[in-house]
Amino acid sequence: MSGRLTANRYGKHQVRVSKIRRPRRAPANQERHEFVEYAVDVELEGAFDVAFTAGDNRPVIATDTCKNTIYVLAKDHPLDTPESFGVAIVEHFMGRYEHVSRCVARLTETVWDRLNDSPHGFVARDRATPTARVELARGGQPVVNSGVEKVLIAKTTESGFVDFHRDDLRTLPDTDDRILATQLSATWTYAGEVADFAAAREAIVNALLGRFLDHYSRSVQETLYLMGQAALEACADMQEITLTMPNKHHLLANLAPFQRENANEVFVVTDEPFGYITGTVAR
Amino acid sequence: MSGRLTANRYGKHQVRVSKIRRPRRAPANQERHEFVEYAVDVELEGAFDVAFTAGDNRPVIATDTCKNTIYVLAKDHPLDTPESFGVAIVEHFMGRYEHVSRCVARLTETVWDRLNDSPHGFVARDRATPTARVELARGGQPVVNSGVEKVLIAKTTESGFVDFHRDDLRTLPDTDDRILATQLSATWTYAGEVADFAAAREAIVNALLGRFLDHYSRSVQETLYLMGQAALEACADMQEITLTMPNKHHLLANLAPFQRENANEVFVVTDEPFGYITGTVAR
Amino acid sequence: MSGRLTANRYGKHQVRVSKIRRPRRAPANQERHEFVEYAVDVELEGAFDVAFTAGDNRPVIATDTCKNTIYVLAKDHPLDTPESFGVAIVEHFMGRYEHVSRCVARLTETVWDRLNDSPHGFVARDRATPTARVELARGGQPVVNSGVEKVLIAKTTESGFVDFHRDDLRTLPDTDDRILATQLSATWTYAGEVADFAAAREAIVNALLGRFLDHYSRSVQETLYLMGQAALEACADMQEITLTMPNKHHLLANLAPFQRENANEVFVVTDEPFGYITGTVAR
Amino acid sequence: MSGRLTANRYGKHQVRVSKIRRPRRAPANQERHEFVEYAVDVELEGAFDVAFTAGDNRPVIATDTCKNTIYVLAKDHPLDTPESFGVAIVEHFMGRYEHVSRCVARLTETVWDRLNDSPHGFVARDRATPTARVELARGGQPVVNSGVEKVLIAKTTESGFVDFHRDDLRTLPDTDDRILATQLSATWTYAGEVADFAAAREAIVNALLGRFLDHYSRSVQETLYLMGQAALEACADMQEITLTMPNKHHLLANLAPFQRENANEVFVVTDEPFGYITGTVAR
Repeated sequence: MSGRLTANRYGKHQVRVSKIRRPRRAPANQERHEFVEYAVDVELEGAFDVAFTAGDNRPVIATDTCKNTIYVLAKDHPLDTPESFGVAIVEHFMGRYEHVSRCVARLTETVWDRLNDSPHGFVARDRATPTARVELARGGQPVVNSGVEKVLIAKTTESGFVDFHRDDLRTLPDTDDRILATQLSATWTYAGEVADFAAAREAIVNALLGRFLDHYSRSVQETLYLMGQAALEACADMQEITLTMPNKHHLLANLAPFQRENANEVFVVTDEPFGYITGTVAR
Repeated sequence: MSGRLTANRYGKHQVRVSKIRRPRRAPANQERHEFVEYAVDVELEGAFDVAFTAGDNRPVIATDTCKNTIYVLAKDHPLDTPESFGVAIVEHFMGRYEHVSRCVARLTETVWDRLNDSPHGFVARDRATPTARVELARGGQPVVNSGVEKVLIAKTTESGFVDFHRDDLRTLPDTDDRILATQLSATWTYAGEVADFAAAREAIVNALLGRFLDHYSRSVQETLYLMGQAALEACADMQEITLTMPNKHHLLANLAPFQRENANEVFVVTDEPFGYITGTVAR
Repeated sequence: MSGRLTANRYGKHQVRVSKIRRPRRAPANQERHEFVEYAVDVELEGAFDVAFTAGDNRPVIATDTCKNTIYVLAKDHPLDTPESFGVAIVEHFMGRYEHVSRCVARLTETVWDRLNDSPHGFVARDRATPTARVELARGGQPVVNSGVEKVLIAKTTESGFVDFHRDDLRTLPDTDDRILATQLSATWTYAGEVADFAAAREAIVNALLGRFLDHYSRSVQETLYLMGQAALEACADMQEITLTMPNKHHLLANLAPFQRENANEVFVVTDEPFGYITGTVAR
Repeated sequence: MSGRLTANRYGKHQVRVSKIRRPRRAPANQERHEFVEYAVDVELEGAFDVAFTAGDNRPVIATDTCKNTIYVLAKDHPLDTPESFGVAIVEHFMGRYEHVSRCVARLTETVWDRLNDSPHGFVARDRATPTARVELARGGQPVVNSGVEKVLIAKTTESGFVDFHRDDLRTLPDTDDRILATQLSATWTYAGEVADFAAAREAIVNALLGRFLDHYSRSVQETLYLMGQAALEACADMQEITLTMPNKHHLLANLAPFQRENANEVFVVTDEPFGYITGTVAR
C-alpha cells in the first residue's frame, strides 16, 4: 500500500486536576488552604512510527498512562504556577522516555479566588484565565509561553474609526465615538529565566488593561499595538507578545423609525460575524 | 382534520441590548459612564389562535416587532435593574395590546464592572450573573422573580457525607472530609413591593455565600437548606427561594498504585455525571 | 432560624451509558451487533426532608448509588427504546425504596446508525435525537413522554408572512416568499399502552416532516398547527403533542448598495435574536 | 516607546451566508432548489502596519467591508463547493487590493440534504461537515486544503490494544476486544488542479470509513495510518492527508460489585480526559 507517515503526535487532553495546598500544617479546620485547578493537555513526539506502520505498540506510552502521570506529578509538585507545572511535565516525559523526542504541555487554570477571607472557601473566576504552553525538544531547554484568555473589556467612549479604505464595497460610515469591546487573549515568551511567572502575568495583565484605557483609540489595531508595548515595558523578561482582539460588536441601534434619537446610548450586541485582529509586538 | 390547539405562546428570544448611562452630563470624555447589558426573552399569550388555525396573522405582533420594542424601551428606560426593565417590558405589551392575556420577560445581565476606576472603562464578569423573570397576566400585578446564576464555589474542607442509605448498589464510602463544590443558582420571589432589587440581590448573594462557609456541611442538602434560611433572614421582602446546587465533583485521585498517599490533596475534576440537588425554602 | 423546606428533589444527571447488543450469538467477529447510547437524568422526591433540616442522611440514596443503578439496569435491560428503559428506571427506584414518592427519568439517545452495513461499524447521528421522560408517582402508573430534538429543517419557498399587526413599532415588511427554517423539537404523550415506541416515533417524525413540506406556510404558527395535526393522525395512540419551532433566521442580504439584485437568493444567517413559537395540539 | 510590530493579521470571522440555487428556471413553486450554507472566515496580511503604529487607517479595509464582500461574492459565485468559493474570495481580495500580500479564507459548510425529495425542502446534517481553507500569497497560486469534521464513528469489536509500554505508571490492562470510537477530522492537500472537489471529498470520506471498518485495529495509530493510505489510494489528486482521531472513550463498566458479569456489554461514556492521536500520511 502507498503512503508514508510523515508526521505524528499523540497524548492525553483535558486531564483536569485540582489540589489543596496546605502551606502551614495546623489543626484540622484552622488550616489555611490554597486551592488550584488545571486542565492539562500533553502531547508526545518520538519513535512511535512502528505503532502506526506495523501495529507494534511497544514504544507507546498509553494515553491512560499519560493521565496517571499528570495526577502523580500533581502530587509531587507544588502546582504554584501553570508554567512551572508544565515544565515539570515535559521534563518528566523527556527524562523518563528516551524515545520521546519532543513533549508539549498546555495548561489552562481555573482560578479559585478566596471567598470572604475564609481559610477554605473559594469562588471560581471565569475571566482572565491564565494559560501556559511548555515545549521541550531532545537536547534543548523548555520553551515557556505564558498567556491569558477570556478578558472581556470595553470602553464606552474614547474610541473611533475614521478614514479607512473607501470603495464601492464599503458601507460603514466614519465614527469618532463608538464602543470598543473585545475579548482579549494574549500569549508571550520570555527572554531568559523567569523568577516568578505569576508576578509577571499580573504585571502584564495590569499593563494591558491600563493601556487599553489610557488613550483615544483610532482603531483596534492601534490599541493592540500600544497594549503590546505597554506589556513589554511592564515585564523586562518578556521577549514578545501576541495579542488577539476580536471585536465584540455593540452596534448603534437604529431608532430613527421610532422617532427616537440615539446619541450613542442604545446598542445591539452581536456575537457574529465579528472582526478579528491579531498582532505580535517584540523588543 | 383532527386536533385542537390547546395552548400556544410565542415571542423573541436572545434580544441582546447594551446601554451607556450618563448620570451627569459633563464635557465629552469627562463623563462618568455606566454600562449595562441584558439579554432579553419576551413571550406572549393571548388571542392568537387564528394565526395557528386559520392562517390569519392580523393579531400577530411580529417577533421582529417584539425585538424593535425591546430596543425602544431600552432607550426610554434607565435599565437600572433587570427586574425593573422586565416590569416595563411586560407592562408595555399588556398596556398596548388588549388581545395579549399574558406576557413573560426573562432577563440575564452581563455585568460590566468598572475597570481601574476609569470613567468609561469596563470589564465583564462571567460569574454570579443576575437574572430576572417578570410575568404579568391580564387583570393582575407583575410577578417578579429575581435570581443569580453561575456562582461556582467550593469549600476544601468542613464537608462530609456519612451514614447515607446502604444497600447492595452503594459503593461510595463514608467520608468526613471532602471537597464540596457547586455551581449555585437561585431564584426567589418577593412578598410585596421591593424598593431596591440590586440591593436585595447583593444582600441575598452575600448571605448565601456566607452561610455556605460558616458550618460543617453534612450534605449538600443540609447546606442548601441553611443557605436558603440565611437568604430569608437577609432580605425581609423575600417570600421564598429555590436553590439549585449541582455537585461539581472533585474526586480523590487514586494514587495507591503509584505508592503515593493522597490525604485529600489531589483530585480528579469531572463535569459529568453530576449530582443534582434542588430545594425551596419559604417563610 | 426561619424558613421551611417546601419542596426538594435530587438525583444524578448526565449518566452516559452505551451497550452492545448481540441479538444472535455467533462466532466472535461474525456477530451482528447493535449499539445504543443514552444519557440519563434521574431525580427522586420523597421522605428526604431530614437530610435538609437535620443533617440526617439515612434516607438518602447517594447520587453515586443512582449512577451505579443506571449501569446495573443497563446490564439487565435490553435498552431497546429510551421509553422502556425510562420505565425500568422509575419502576426500580419506586419498587426498591418505599420512602421515594416520585421518580422522574429523562433520557436522550445518541443514535448510532449502522455504517456500510458492517456487523459492528456505526456512525453517530446528531440530528433528530430521540428523547423520553418517564414519571412515576407512588400509587400511579408510569407517565411516558416521548420526544425528538434538533431537527433542523428549512423550506426555501412556499412560505410567506403577511398582514400581521401593524403599528409604529413594526418595521418588518410583508413578504409572500421567504425561507422558513426552524430547529424543531417536539414532545408528546400517549393515551394508553404503546406497543412500539420506536415505530411510533418514526411515524410521528415522518408525519411532522411531510406536513412541514406539503403546504404554503402563512406563518410558523400555521405550519406548527398543521404539523401537530399530522402527528395526531399518524399515531392513533398519541394524546397530545407540543411543538417548539424557533425561527432560524435566514434574512435577505441587502445587496442594493452594491448594485446587485437579490431575488431571494443570498441570505444572512443569524442565530440570535430568534423568534420562538410553541404550541400544543390535542385530540 | 519600545516594541516593534513583527506580525499582524486581521479580517472577519463567522460570516454566515446561505444561498438558494435555482439550476433550471421554472414556474415559481415547481423550481427544484438547491440550498447551501457556509460560515466564512477571511483574514488579510499586507501593508497595514501604519494602522497599528501610527493610527493611520487609510490602508485598512474595514472588517465590515470584508463582510459585505462575502455577501456580494456569494451572489456572483455559484457556491458549488467551499473550495471554489474560497478560491474566489482570496482571488477577489488579492486582485482588488494591491497592498494585501496574503489572504486566507476558511469555510465550514452546513450541509442541507434534500428532504423527502421535495424541490424546496431540506434537513441539515450535523455530521461529516465539509471544510476548506484557501490561502493565496502575492505572486503565488491559491493553495487549497479540503477537510471534513465531526465524523463520530465507532466499531464495537475488531479492536484491541496490547503490549504497549509497561512501567510503574501504567495501570491500563491489555485488551484484545474493546470499543474504538473516535470523532474523526481530516484535512488534505492536492498535488495539482482538482476537477471536482465534492467528488474528491466523497471518495475520500468513503475510503476513510471503509478502511476504518475493514481490519482488526491494533491501535488508533495503526487504524489512522491505514485510513490515510486508503484516502491516498481513493483520490489520485491528493498529496497528503492529516487525520485527527481523538478517542471517544467507552470504558467497560465495573459491575463486579453488583454480581454481574460484563463481557463487553455495558460501557461508561466519557468526554474527558480523552486520548488524542494525529498523523500525516503523504505519497
